[in-house]
Amino acid sequence: MTRFAITIEYDGTDFHGWQVQSARRTVQQVVETALAKTLGAEGTVAVHGSGRTDAGVHAAGQVAHFDAETDLSTDTLVRALNFWLPDDVGVLRAERVCPDFHARYSAKSKLYRYRLLCSPVPRPLRRRFVYREFKDLNLTIMQRCARIVLGIHDFASFTSSGSNAESTVRRIFRSEWEKSGPEFHYHVRGEGFTYNMVRALVGTMMEAGHGRISPAHFRRIILARDRTMAGPTAAPQGLMLMRVNY
Amino acid sequence: MTRFAITIEYDGTDFHGWQVQSARRTVQQVVETALAKTLGAEGTVAVHGSGRTDAGVHAAGQVAHFDAETDLSTDTLVRALNFWLPDDVGVLRAERVCPDFHARYSAKSKLYRYRLLCSPVPRPLRRRFVYREFKDLNLTIMQRCARIVLGIHDFASFTSSGSNAESTVRRIFRSEWEKSGPEFHYHVRGEGFTYNMVRALVGTMMEAGHGRISPAHFRRIILARDRTMAGPTAAPQGLMLMRVNY
Repeated sequence: MTRFAITIEYDGTDFHGWQVQSARRTVQQVVETALAKTLGAEGTVAVHGSGRTDAGVHAAGQVAHFDAETDLSTDTLVRALNFWLPDDVGVLRAERVCPDFHARYSAKSKLYRYRLLCSPVPRPLRRRFVYREFKDLNLTIMQRCARIVLGIHDFASFTSSGSNAESTVRRIFRSEWEKSGPEFHYHVRGEGFTYNMVRALVGTMMEAGHGRISPAHFRRIILARDRTMAGPTAAPQGLMLMRVNY
Repeated sequence: MTRFAITIEYDGTDFHGWQVQSARRTVQQVVETALAKTLGAEGTVAVHGSGRTDAGVHAAGQVAHFDAETDLSTDTLVRALNFWLPDDVGVLRAERVCPDFHARYSAKSKLYRYRLLCSPVPRPLRRRFVYREFKDLNLTIMQRCARIVLGIHDFASFTSSGSNAESTVRRIFRSEWEKSGPEFHYHVRGEGFTYNMVRALVGTMMEAGHGRISPAHFRRIILARDRTMAGPTAAPQGLMLMRVNY
């Protein structure tokens, strides 16, 4: 048996997220099916991702591992998988890894990006990958909130129920907003994230960007460790898993 | 009656092009329907575009005009149109124009961009807007071909049959390839373009980029005024109408 790690890009629009759910189209399910066809295996081959992405969330660099008994070169494996995959998922590369590599547990950090478009009119060319706000936002205030996120915090206020994580404490290495034309991009890199955490952070920082809460209030929301204190969960289509670092 | 000009952005993936065709979903048809609903008119209101775009071709700045008896402000008109339009079409702005303005005949030039992605693996996040080539292309040779296109030429070699244009002579003001990461972008601005001209130019320059023809041969293809001499018509999804200048 050899363990392989693959890097996957996908457009999450037409998926019910990463994780296999019976009778729903998920990324994990189509990758497992493509892998079984590639290897000539019966049924499916278990593929373990670095983490789930929700319905509508995209990935430019999701990583997953699996075990296979195969002599195929990694190049051939990539070509075969891409042959079987639908056009909204692609395998960018494959590598042979140590048997103790685990896509989820070996991850040192993950980088996400959230794209927020401020525009009074719809922008159809970007619609799959941005969340649109009609009114302009205050970048400076959002940047101040983003800096508060840096470091080690209990993110209970930004964790949706439905999470089964025991701890909601996470370490965040990067947290910043950048302006790019009419868009605001939030870049966040952390050891890990609780359920819906990035989208809840974005939804709450947008409240600050609209002047509804101050950075000091944003800090109090973190300290409160109470989900009802924070803002709404931002829409999934703006979010993209950019990279998993090992 | 007042004449209005609107600027439209659309994702052409799920349209059978711009022009109304019975029983097919076209951009012109959905804009005319949205306009009739906005104005409370019976049936549809005729909307005249700057030109057709083919099935699968996109627009970041298509322009169209129509006549209407309305007191609506242009802001209200934009909001109402966008309310009625599907999410793959958006009106970016509307202006009142002179009665002799014509979206097609008043146009001084149009700018198109073609996106070619060189990648051995699929890139799902870009798939709607690029044509993918597996092998890398020679940028220098394609740039030399692009420069030959500048000026006034008879583009009969790059005009698909099915065109009803009397003349195939066109003046080209800008014609250049640029590299952008793994993508090659062709920018071409001209007084006008014959049927499928940009895509036939791109398909032929790709032949040069693969080393199958030389820039000198490319020049002979133009001079031949014979469609069978040129390369294939490049796939529609890479093409975007960027701007119409008046």
